[in-house]
Amino acid sequence: MARRRRGGAAKKATGRADWSSWPAYEAAASGLRNYWYPVYWSAEVGRKPVGVTVCGEKIMLQRDQHGVAHALHDRCLHRGVPLSMGVEEFPGTVTCPYHAWTYDLSTGELVAVITDGPDSPICGKVAVETYPVDEAVGLVWVFIGDREPHPLHEQLPEELQNPPPYAVGGRVEDRDGDWRLFAENGFDEGHAKYLHRTSYWRIFKTMPTWNIVHIERHGRWIYRIEDERHWEAEFPGLGTWSNARPWKIKPRQHQGKMLGNTGGAKRNDPYILSQDLPGFASLSLPGVLRIAYPQFIHYEFYVPIEKGRTKYVGVMVQFKTGLAKAVFYAKYLGGIRWLFHGNFSAQDGWMVEATDAPPERLYRPDISLLEWRRLVEEGNPFDDDYVMPEDALTSSKASDAPGSADGDGA
Amino acid sequence: MARRRRGGAAKKATGRADWSSWPAYEAAASGLRNYWYPVYWSAEVGRKPVGVTVCGEKIMLQRDQHGVAHALHDRCLHRGVPLSMGVEEFPGTVTCPYHAWTYDLSTGELVAVITDGPDSPICGKVAVETYPVDEAVGLVWVFIGDREPHPLHEQLPEELQNPPPYAVGGRVEDRDGDWRLFAENGFDEGHAKYLHRTSYWRIFKTMPTWNIVHIERHGRWIYRIEDERHWEAEFPGLGTWSNARPWKIKPRQHQGKMLGNTGGAKRNDPYILSQDLPGFASLSLPGVLRIAYPQFIHYEFYVPIEKGRTKYVGVMVQFKTGLAKAVFYAKYLGGIRWLFHGNFSAQDGWMVEATDAPPERLYRPDISLLEWRRLVEEGNPFDDDYVMPEDALTSSKASDAPGSADGDGA
Amino acid sequence: MARRRRGGAAKKATGRADWSSWPAYEAAASGLRNYWYPVYWSAEVGRKPVGVTVCGEKIMLQRDQHGVAHALHDRCLHRGVPLSMGVEEFPGTVTCPYHAWTYDLSTGELVAVITDGPDSPICGKVAVETYPVDEAVGLVWVFIGDREPHPLHEQLPEELQNPPPYAVGGRVEDRDGDWRLFAENGFDEGHAKYLHRTSYWRIFKTMPTWNIVHIERHGRWIYRIEDERHWEAEFPGLGTWSNARPWKIKPRQHQGKMLGNTGGAKRNDPYILSQDLPGFASLSLPGVLRIAYPQFIHYEFYVPIEKGRTKYVGVMVQFKTGLAKAVFYAKYLGGIRWLFHGNFSAQDGWMVEATDAPPERLYRPDISLLEWRRLVEEGNPFDDDYVMPEDALTSSKASDAPGSADGDGA
Repeated sequence: MARRRRGGAAKKATGRADWSSWPAYEAAASGLRNYWYPVYWSAEVGRKPVGVTVCGEKIMLQRDQHGVAHALHDRCLHRGVPLSMGVEEFPGTVTCPYHAWTYDLSTGELVAVITDGPDSPICGKVAVETYPVDEAVGLVWVFIGDREPHPLHEQLPEELQNPPPYAVGGRVEDRDGDWRLFAENGFDEGHAKYLHRTSYWRIFKTMPTWNIVHIERHGRWIYRIEDERHWEAEFPGLGTWSNARPWKIKPRQHQGKMLGNTGGAKRNDPYILSQDLPGFASLSLPGVLRIAYPQFIHYEFYVPIEKGRTKYVGVMVQFKTGLAKAVFYAKYLGGIRWLFHGNFSAQDGWMVEATDAPPERLYRPDISLLEWRRLVEEGNPFDDDYVMPEDALTSSKASDAPGSADGDGA
Repeated sequence: MARRRRGGAAKKATGRADWSSWPAYEAAASGLRNYWYPVYWSAEVGRKPVGVTVCGEKIMLQRDQHGVAHALHDRCLHRGVPLSMGVEEFPGTVTCPYHAWTYDLSTGELVAVITDGPDSPICGKVAVETYPVDEAVGLVWVFIGDREPHPLHEQLPEELQNPPPYAVGGRVEDRDGDWRLFAENGFDEGHAKYLHRTSYWRIFKTMPTWNIVHIERHGRWIYRIEDERHWEAEFPGLGTWSNARPWKIKPRQHQGKMLGNTGGAKRNDPYILSQDLPGFASLSLPGVLRIAYPQFIHYEFYVPIEKGRTKYVGVMVQFKTGLAKAVFYAKYLGGIRWLFHGNFSAQDGWMVEATDAPPERLYRPDISLLEWRRLVEEGNPFDDDYVMPEDALTSSKASDAPGSADGDGA
Repeated sequence: MARRRRGGAAKKATGRADWSSWPAYEAAASGLRNYWYPVYWSAEVGRKPVGVTVCGEKIMLQRDQHGVAHALHDRCLHRGVPLSMGVEEFPGTVTCPYHAWTYDLSTGELVAVITDGPDSPICGKVAVETYPVDEAVGLVWVFIGDREPHPLHEQLPEELQNPPPYAVGGRVEDRDGDWRLFAENGFDEGHAKYLHRTSYWRIFKTMPTWNIVHIERHGRWIYRIEDERHWEAEFPGLGTWSNARPWKIKPRQHQGKMLGNTGGAKRNDPYILSQDLPGFASLSLPGVLRIAYPQFIHYEFYVPIEKGRTKYVGVMVQFKTGLAKAVFYAKYLGGIRWLFHGNFSAQDGWMVEATDAPPERLYRPDISLLEWRRLVEEGNPFDDDYVMPEDALTSSKASDAPGSADGDGA
């Protein structure tokens, strides 16, 4: 019964051994710098300090007496104790729990050392680093980098820059796994139809078996565009495969390329429609996924904590007010939060944790992943000296897809 | 009350600092290659894949629609997700849970990618490695190595190659500790009489206090032969020591060198007797211990998982059929499994985990360990070009034993 | 709302990057050698061996039939199994649980190998290392080093060398954290008033807000002397801060510099007073803190287990006999043990674990820490060739304090 180790035709498992084709990407294991990152719900940051790690930097967040949030390096200059263990002894300051070194929240300056008296000679001579802080979409954001920060407003998805009133629901969760693998997973068409076939979110909603996609570039976003959709497939010598089940419904109408379909929506939200998005799934730097559905937009921010650890910030935005907003919150908290931001998204977390790439061997749908990596290589679009390269992607073609040739195809 | 650090006679704790005298052995921390290893009970391998690590290699096992077991490298070529997390979407294949890459179990070839449709250009172009698989003694075995595998049949203990019907009981358990230390512990006469004196298995059975042994080589096995047996000893200036207790029985008859004695057996099994084994304890490559008792043979396979981790496969074989077989199973499951493969064997596991060698300072009974290491140095007896060395051991003498001279004696 | 990373005045967080100014101190991560260390309560060491690690050395302790405690290297010469897993098969010996190698507790010599019989050729040829052992203050001490040990008596605090009868209460606990950080924390005036403000021990006892201290050297001890005490302070632009609360009492009388005050004592112990200590807090090598209170002296021994792990030995000594001794034990066990050696001391453990120094930026009260490091640099005062340096500290001045200048000030 014994067999040789290699398959009959002795095919080699060639592929890509590392990410050296994308040097900026390969170097970004602990995150891309000079971006804003959402780190806490606004409601979670109060006058008691809290700590967070972003791109490997330890940060303390605290609100002052005027409600303004501030961020300091989370390390007392004296002996390295985290300031997030401290308390606010005087308004607008934070005091280290060990020797009561007291820092001004706005400037990071050491303004008092309680245990050394009012004439403490060290006061006013040293300061901890501060981080730019801002708030939007119900979240507190910090800027990680060493350049002058661009306004957070510019980095928000365009439809959230001057939006009508909207409601927000979401989940913030620290997860094991590389932020780059989370971003690739989020924008990937390939896995959704198979991995998520068992999610509760899809119990009554059929998904296709396979698609043909291409990627388009519009501004700072890349969009995944569906060219073909196949509900069922016959694999020669193996059998038929389909996600269709008698109790699952297919989308009732075709929303075009613009809106993702969860199968049940009868109407489209006018504000979302008005955005005229080229595709329902899009991705931008520094790792922001946008999925436009008929009634809401879902965003995922993959915030690098440190190498191998990612803060998943999943946010659902519905452009509603008044009673509709209350209904949205009831639906979100009553089910969507658990089904979509919980069970469904946990399947992605499970796979990203199990992923062990590179090495990797890419296939046709991985064109999404290749264009994302190219986008990272282009550099930070918010830099003053950024110029979009002349050969930047406008639209990928089928022949660009990997896996066609004998090599990696990329 | 203060004392100097060294003993009165300033004796040095000289000994062996490492295993460089046995280079092949020293290099084999993660196992010996080009052997068959038992990894699962046959009943545990079904059409749902299972994973195992052997000699540091990750392997997936799955049975096809004909009941034939197959082994593949447990890593999807695409993005490294373990195939043992997958399912069988089509008979005779395994499908990765992430993007539904589907591999043929026999050849390892990629035969379909469900999420890329029937015309997926990558199909048929790549393959994962396969491992030779076979079954015997109620276990599934895989061959780890890069040479053409010898038949599993040849590697089985001779009495199991063409045996009468027999019954099998056993325990498979992953344990911390080096597989080499498990093998040395298993074949070691020295510890058994002392360490296991407190085991439940020995509550009513006396063991000797000390023995004189030598080692004989017959074919690919080395045997431990008892020359002297002492039930009690008087240690000058210290006192008398004995395992004898009023409620413990000594063996009623002398079975010669051939069969180990558990104290209670009145008859010997004719098939076991007919093997005419030179000693009741024997060891062979790649780490197979055989202890012949009057009524059954006990085997231990020390399967290297990876450095510092070992799969203990303990198997008890009784050459019985019909009612006697049923009685054996009842006895085994009712007590032996827990007493012998549980409590008794756990004492070995406890000591192997506590062992911190090399460095080491060997003593007279360690002749068993020295001959085992020499056997490993000889190389793989199933290699086509294997020739037993002219100076291979036939029988050790007392003067070969370590600990006699001032150095290591080895 | 975005801000620059640095404080308004762009002050740098300069300071000390490492401890290279104190090379002996920097090298002592796993402890100082050639000292006695307390490791167990005397009552905990009996005829069943126990293990302990000190300065990275694994040690086994066991009492013989005469009640004398012995210490051996905790590693059987044969295969490295810890002897502390063994038992006493013959009086005055310890036997390894694996192969019954039996060592003399006094000399470390291998005197019998039970599993190799009375004529075992290795006996008398090898020995494990022994460690000097002694007992004092209710504790078992071992000497770690390679020089001839000085008598333990000489290393005890002077008032315990020929003391009147006394009672002892205490706590021995292994903690995460560097032994040096524990010593610095223990002698540090700075943190006590702030960190411990919330301890149960201080619920009814006010502490000052800040002090001015200097350090004096007397013999092998350095003393922290209070020059100023401030119960309250007004921090310009921030507000007033004080530990005073209506329900907390201040010390009723001034005991001078000599005795620490817990707020409630009305009388001073005559034996403690007779010591005429220059200050109530003092520190000596190899990490012994002494805090003299009106009614008892509290000692802390910071015993290095290994890098980053410390055995905290906290001992309270009261010079009482008869009924007063019984009352002391009742009070100690009924409350002090939990309040002082438990909750209060756990706050120190919490901060030492959170400390991440160097790098560090010292301030005025850290003069205590600087003088302690200098003391370590001077070398072992129990060495035969030790000479106190001519420029050894006699008394520090305020201008020596760090944090005054723009740099580190040390």
